[in-house]
Order: sequence, then C-alpha cells, then structure tokens
Amino acid sequence: MQPTPETLGNRRDDFFGRLERYRELVTPVLTAALPDKEPRRHLYDIIRAFVGKPGKGLRPALCIATCTAFGGREDDALPTAAALELLHNALLVHDDVEDESEYRRSEPTLHTRYGVPIAVNTGDAMNALTLRLVLKNLELVGAGKTWRILEEFDHLLVESLEGQAMELGWIRDNDTSVGEDDYLRMILKKTCWYSFIHPCRLGALLAGRSDLERFDRFGYFAGAAFQIKDDLLNLVGDARRYGKEIGGDLWEGKRTLMLAHAFGEASPKDRARLAAMLERPRSARLERDVDWMQKLLHETGSIEHATRAAAELARAAKTEFEVAYADAPESDEKSLLREIVAYAVEREL
Amino acid sequence: MQPTPETLGNRRDDFFGRLERYRELVTPVLTAALPDKEPRRHLYDIIRAFVGKPGKGLRPALCIATCTAFGGREDDALPTAAALELLHNALLVHDDVEDESEYRRSEPTLHTRYGVPIAVNTGDAMNALTLRLVLKNLELVGAGKTWRILEEFDHLLVESLEGQAMELGWIRDNDTSVGEDDYLRMILKKTCWYSFIHPCRLGALLAGRSDLERFDRFGYFAGAAFQIKDDLLNLVGDARRYGKEIGGDLWEGKRTLMLAHAFGEASPKDRARLAAMLERPRSARLERDVDWMQKLLHETGSIEHATRAAAELARAAKTEFEVAYADAPESDEKSLLREIVAYAVEREL
Repeated sequence: MQPTPETLGNRRDDFFGRLERYRELVTPVLTAALPDKEPRRHLYDIIRAFVGKPGKGLRPALCIATCTAFGGREDDALPTAAALELLHNALLVHDDVEDESEYRRSEPTLHTRYGVPIAVNTGDAMNALTLRLVLKNLELVGAGKTWRILEEFDHLLVESLEGQAMELGWIRDNDTSVGEDDYLRMILKKTCWYSFIHPCRLGALLAGRSDLERFDRFGYFAGAAFQIKDDLLNLVGDARRYGKEIGGDLWEGKRTLMLAHAFGEASPKDRARLAAMLERPRSARLERDVDWMQKLLHETGSIEHATRAAAELARAAKTEFEVAYADAPESDEKSLLREIVAYAVEREL
Repeated sequence: MQPTPETLGNRRDDFFGRLERYRELVTPVLTAALPDKEPRRHLYDIIRAFVGKPGKGLRPALCIATCTAFGGREDDALPTAAALELLHNALLVHDDVEDESEYRRSEPTLHTRYGVPIAVNTGDAMNALTLRLVLKNLELVGAGKTWRILEEFDHLLVESLEGQAMELGWIRDNDTSVGEDDYLRMILKKTCWYSFIHPCRLGALLAGRSDLERFDRFGYFAGAAFQIKDDLLNLVGDARRYGKEIGGDLWEGKRTLMLAHAFGEASPKDRARLAAMLERPRSARLERDVDWMQKLLHETGSIEHATRAAAELARAAKTEFEVAYADAPESDEKSLLREIVAYAVEREL
C-alpha cells in the first residue's frame, strides 16, 4: 500500500512522539544533575530554563536507540544521553557568543539576554556539569565502561573545538581560499563526531560492543548531510520554523559549502566584491550586501550544488547506516534510527 | 643569627629558584598534552604561546610539594600539577573575556589580540585538554586515585564557576548591597578552592592520604588573604610588576572587600555617586570617575581596612598551615610550602 498523506502524517507524529518519549526519559536525568542551590539567578536558573526548552534531542535519541538496538538496556544509556544533550547545550551557548547569533530556538540567545560574561560562564558550567553526569555512570555500568565513555567525551569535545577553531579562523582571516574539501574536513570535526559518530559509538559501547569504528562512515555522511542541510535552511528556510535568523550565516561571514562553491564559480569582479563584503565586521555589514550575496549564491548555482551534495551525502548515509547496523536485528529502535537519519538529512525545518 | 638583607635576598632567590624548578618539571608534561597538529594558527599555537609564558606556578607547586611532604612521589604529582596549571590558564582566558581585561602577564589578553570568539573557543579547548591530562593518571597512579582526582577537579571547577557567577551577577545588577560576608563567600568559591584547598588536597591524595578536609581551614584563610591582597595590588600596585592594569577592577566595577566596606562607610551622597558611577558600562566610565572612586576608598578607610583584614587572614593561614601539615615531618618541601604561603599572602608584586 502506498502511504497516503494521512498515514505519512501519522507516521510523522509517531516519529516525533517517540523522540518526545526519549526526551521525557532524558530530561529528568539531566535536570537532576543541575545543582538545586545558589547561585540561581545568574547561573542555575539560566541553565534550567535553557535545557527546559530542548531541541529535538537527536543526539540522545541516537545514543539510546543504538544502545537498545544492539541489545543494551535503555536505562544504562540515560546518563550518557543526558550528558550528550547537556554538552550540546553548552556548545550552543558558546557558539552563539562566538557567532554573535541573536536567536536560538526562537528565543533571544543567552548572551543577548544576559550579556557575554554571564553567557560564557554559564556555558562553562554546563560543560563542567557534563563531566559530573558522565561520572554518574560508575554505579550504573561500572568502571571499565565509564572510563571508555570518558575517553569518548574527551575525543568528541576536542574534535568539536578544533572544528570551531577552523571555522572561526577562516572568518577572522577573511579566508577566501577555503575550498569544499576544507569545509568538509571542518564539519567532520565540528559536527559529525559529536552529533552522529560519538552518540552511536556511546550507545553501542553501553551495549557492550567494542567495534566502534563501524559508525565512522555512516556518521560522517549523516553529519555532513545534516550540516549542509542546516546551512541551506539558514539561507533559504522559514525563520519561524527554523528558530534562527535567516541569512544569519551570511551576516556572520560563515564559510559554507555554498560560499566555497561560489568563490570558485563567481566572476573575478563578483569574487572581489564578495571578499570585500565578508571583510567587514558584522556590525558594518548592510542588508543590501546580504541580499546581494544571497543572489550571488543562486546565480553561481551554489545553492543548487549544495542541495545536490546534501542529497548525495544523505543517500550515502542511508546506505552506510545499513552497513553499520547490519548485525543489529530489526527492531522498533532500528526503525526509529532509520527515521532519525532520514529526518536529520532531509528535514525542511 | 638574624637574617641580613643579603641572606634574605638569597633566601628569596632560592624560593623563586625552587618554584622555577617545579615549573621546569611541570611545563614539559603540560606541553606534551597539547596536540601537535592542526589547527595550529587559531588554536594550538595560541595555547602553546599562552602556557609558554607561565605565571608563578603556585598551584602546581602547592600540589607537588604537598604530595612529597606527605611522603608521596614527586613524579606521581606531575600530570595533576600540570592539569591544575592548564585549568588555571583556561579560567584566566575566560575571566579576561568576562571582565573585559586588557592586560595579563604584561601582555595583551587573548581576546584583545585574537578577538572574543577565538578566545572563548581557546579557553574551552584548554579546559577540555585538562580532562585529558587528568585521565593520564590512570597508568601512573591507578584507577582508584584517578577517580578521586576527577572528583576533585569536578568540585573545584564547579565551585569556581559558581563564584564567578556571583561576581558577574553583582556587576550586571550593579548590586550595591554586597556586604563583606558576601564577598568572602564569593572568594571562597572563586579563589580558595581552586588556588589552595584543592591543590593541597590533590597532593595529599596522591601521597595516599584520605583525610583531605584537613586543608579546608588553611586553604580558606590563605585563599582569602591572597585574593584580598590581589585586589589591593590591583588598586595601589605597580603596573609594571603587577602585569595588569592598575585600577582595572574599578573600571570593571568588580565587588571587592574595599568596595563593600566603602558602601557601608560612605556618606549617603557619596554612596549614591558611587552607585551611579558603577551603573555605567565600562566603556562609559571616565578616568576622573575612577580617580574619584580610588580617593573615596582611601577616605572611607576601606583600603586600610582591607589591608588589615588581609594581614589577619594571612596570620590565620600561617597558623592553620601548621595544623594542616602537623603530621608531615619537617622537610625541604614543608619549608617551601611555608614560603609559598608567606609569598601568596604577603607579596608586594
């Protein structure tokens, strides 16, 4: 039977319902890890409010579902899933400071509301509390696994910060030589490890697997498709559904696949104009400059090019998913994982 | 024999020479923990340069000397001492962003040189690499001790960030009701744990002691004396020797013991004027305002009051040192620890 719009709608509701169920498992573990004491007003209240408006929770869902798909216990994955979510939030707070982003999850970013000093300190505290959550694994899964979990977090964090350093460095230097391969190396570090590869590795590790490099290819393709999709939505998405400012990346001068492609394709004159616009600090950039850049990305076929690249990467991610999860028997969790992957790489919001 | 100025000079040289020797042990362990790879220019080169211009190294020295004073092996303390120093550097980088400080160790601060985005990310990476250094203890001292070390770092980091949240909150709210007891609670969190109590606890832990609360009173008095001294030097010190801008705390609106005292002692008119000056953002504060505040702190006897408080706390620290280290036999390390305490609470630079 072909799916009708209604059954598709139901399936979609079911998908979000299942993510919601995971969030309901993870959120109490996460909030229980937040100290219930002073200083509230300038620290813990801010963290509590931030994690109380969660995103989709794709990372914890990947971790929990991978754990159960490989025969592990759901409960064993909860502190680790909560730690992934808390660390994600910590990184978002600092990312927003670093990118001077004004909106996140349809609300003003933390530094917009509380100032840069308190936002930086709050992000630091969320990061520190992540370690505390990871250490909670000791009673639950024993020293050996907890140790391995710590090593995974160590790697994912350093990789993410290295990727962020690359991206910030390109903006600071107004580097116009950033190619598509540079961009892909950057998002492998900045996105793929912490959003896909490590959540899956951690889930499998908690289920007792040790062959964790099985997720590398899948996670790379999925993460790359996800990030390029995210960059595209930032350019051409619907602000209300996306929750961030549209065109924000252009205001920030962020190097994307589209920008790398446009630098290769634009006429020398347009290339020089593009470089000159990106040279200006964000505060000196004009609405009409951003509009012109947006138009250029269309004219050079860069948006189409990135859309195609994302689609190819998404296809590869789906193929590699079946390889990575080949010896996980079919189950509700495995279907959910497939849906998470499809959602992450194809979402329109 | 009474010490002559010359023998005092020699003793002083000897003291700095011994700190230097510890730095020579710790620095290679620290730099070996920094990845020797890309991204260099916008991450690892920056970290390497920053840790390559170290401070006095009081925290690692307290850790190593306490370990050996209690019969532990010097080598066992090195990764932990290096981790303390790296974390200290990470906190300094973010503190400078949060306080908008312009100078540190007689050089422009990281965000002044590389911009806030890269400074925040670099501080995050230094923090992340601290965990990596702590994990290195596993091979050296075994899982049990490494676990305890992790817990110590967890506590010291969260306490420091809580103290920082208090301080930043007072500035943000322009809170003029901050009393001397609030200030002392804040520096217990922000300074005492990470600069004194935990370095000593960690050293003793590495030497196999478990009665670590023995350092609480000593560390509190020493840390409080050290911080008040630091705040006084910021007001009345010699910029060249101090390495930071003199009066910087007044520019930043930082709540100090002097300011808390002045709010209690000033006339209602002066109090209102002080509050109005502190209300302004740093960029709108004037040289003559800062001069007036400095004068007020003298007139209200607040500088004298803080100088006296620091001296009393310093005396208490020395007394409590003898209690905390009572069952460590006299040794070179124990003498050095006494000198570190004396230096920290009495230094004039």
